[in-house]
Amino acid sequence: MTEASAENASQIAKRVQDSFDQQTMMRTAGAELVAVEPGRVTIRAPIAAHLLQQHGAAHAGLAFMLGDSAAGYAALTLMPEGVEVMTVEMKINLMAPAVGEALEAVGSVERTGRRLSVVRAEVVAVTGGRRKTVALLQGTMIPVDPA
Amino acid sequence: MTEASAENASQIAKRVQDSFDQQTMMRTAGAELVAVEPGRVTIRAPIAAHLLQQHGAAHAGLAFMLGDSAAGYAALTLMPEGVEVMTVEMKINLMAPAVGEALEAVGSVERTGRRLSVVRAEVVAVTGGRRKTVALLQGTMIPVDPA
Amino acid sequence: MTEASAENASQIAKRVQDSFDQQTMMRTAGAELVAVEPGRVTIRAPIAAHLLQQHGAAHAGLAFMLGDSAAGYAALTLMPEGVEVMTVEMKINLMAPAVGEALEAVGSVERTGRRLSVVRAEVVAVTGGRRKTVALLQGTMIPVDPA
Amino acid sequence: MTEASAENASQIAKRVQDSFDQQTMMRTAGAELVAVEPGRVTIRAPIAAHLLQQHGAAHAGLAFMLGDSAAGYAALTLMPEGVEVMTVEMKINLMAPAVGEALEAVGSVERTGRRLSVVRAEVVAVTGGRRKTVALLQGTMIPVDPA
Repeated sequence: MTEASAENASQIAKRVQDSFDQQTMMRTAGAELVAVEPGRVTIRAPIAAHLLQQHGAAHAGLAFMLGDSAAGYAALTLMPEGVEVMTVEMKINLMAPAVGEALEAVGSVERTGRRLSVVRAEVVAVTGGRRKTVALLQGTMIPVDPA
Repeated sequence: MTEASAENASQIAKRVQDSFDQQTMMRTAGAELVAVEPGRVTIRAPIAAHLLQQHGAAHAGLAFMLGDSAAGYAALTLMPEGVEVMTVEMKINLMAPAVGEALEAVGSVERTGRRLSVVRAEVVAVTGGRRKTVALLQGTMIPVDPA
Repeated sequence: MTEASAENASQIAKRVQDSFDQQTMMRTAGAELVAVEPGRVTIRAPIAAHLLQQHGAAHAGLAFMLGDSAAGYAALTLMPEGVEVMTVEMKINLMAPAVGEALEAVGSVERTGRRLSVVRAEVVAVTGGRRKTVALLQGTMIPVDPA
Repeated sequence: MTEASAENASQIAKRVQDSFDQQTMMRTAGAELVAVEPGRVTIRAPIAAHLLQQHGAAHAGLAFMLGDSAAGYAALTLMPEGVEVMTVEMKINLMAPAVGEALEAVGSVERTGRRLSVVRAEVVAVTGGRRKTVALLQGTMIPVDPA
């Protein structure tokens, strides 16, 4: 990596972190940004007692919001400065009960465009060293100029 | 309504309420069951300070979890006693920023089946007497026997 | 209806018909435009011997293309002249085998916007006077300037 | 590969080919099975003059039907003999106009289960040696016993 791209990568990471910190929902979920790379963002949250469905697994809403946010921030890493992104639509397939210590969502960009980005995310339940995919998401992000 | 069906309707409402009360995520969201009819369930939550995205609107995760839960419980009202339902997959289109006093999600059943149910939900932002649709959901529920 | 809006409605219907006639896939499917109203378009195709899956029902691809086209043209009816629309994404839930004489798709607009439209479609299998819903679609259209 | 698994692989390929050959829609599309492996199936069709939308690109319905079929047959390769699969729901994101010589769809299985399978497909436009992804699909297949 050149000095210039390293500085750029760190600016992008800061931009994502700043936005993330303003999402009170992420704080409510106990979520944190684990990794920010161009086109790829990882978010993690413990499966906490206040985020469950009726059988003690994590609520589908938790898998959704982590996957959606990871995918959205992945899209953001490829946008020009000052632009933000919003979710147009998102589809989630739930593959297994979300049980374990934490959920980790990895969002990635399949296509970035001036008008729309196509994104995906995989949500994994982590228990000690074991990892099990619990959800897959596929959706669309739109760049918005907040000014 | 006959006495029998009235009793049945009240049993179904109790069954939904009991399950809803066990969802700690619904409590975290400040959500409450507003109406339970056969094939149609309404859930409402205030747009509270701890459930926002970075621009002060309700997080997409809130619209999702209210819509998904309303749709799931709508499916549950048509299931035999003792059966529960889980989300197989859910698609959400976000149509407008979720700003206002509260979000209200109305879930409905498009097709109920022994193996799968097809459901929809509409999520509306409510501000005083004004109502604005902010999200539409369409998905699949599967009956599960928890025993 | 005023004279002006009647003329406008007939111009919109012509615009949709002209575009439809250029879709060779619609001809291959034997599809025809049944009704064009602002925000609502109906397309119909016989369940013909060359459009089937392995069990003799209409192929899911037929239900998809009729529903997608009906939804797209519904969005087009609300666009300024000279603008066209393309499908960004589409979700289909298949509810019953597509058997009978014909499939009829009714597309409708849930939200029209400068940047994106949210649409839905219902696909019904028709046999004599009986009608059975076989698929529901929900998706996103984007206006494009073909010039 | 052992002799037994080689025989098994060839039986699976035959099972998929037999089913594929009964789909008259695949014949109408000029589609052919390119590769059948456990959990992964490739289908290809020329972008022919009778399968276009109004601007001369392949119709979204073609990308859908190839992707959906590739994904469905990928799921079938992991099913016990005598079982077939049907599409429960499918979501397609269209990423670029489907122009070129042919469309190639690669379907894969993300999770196989007794009750449901989660599948994906990627559809690529091929022109000489160039390949461009034009659509991504994600959906659910259900095993059915045709007897």
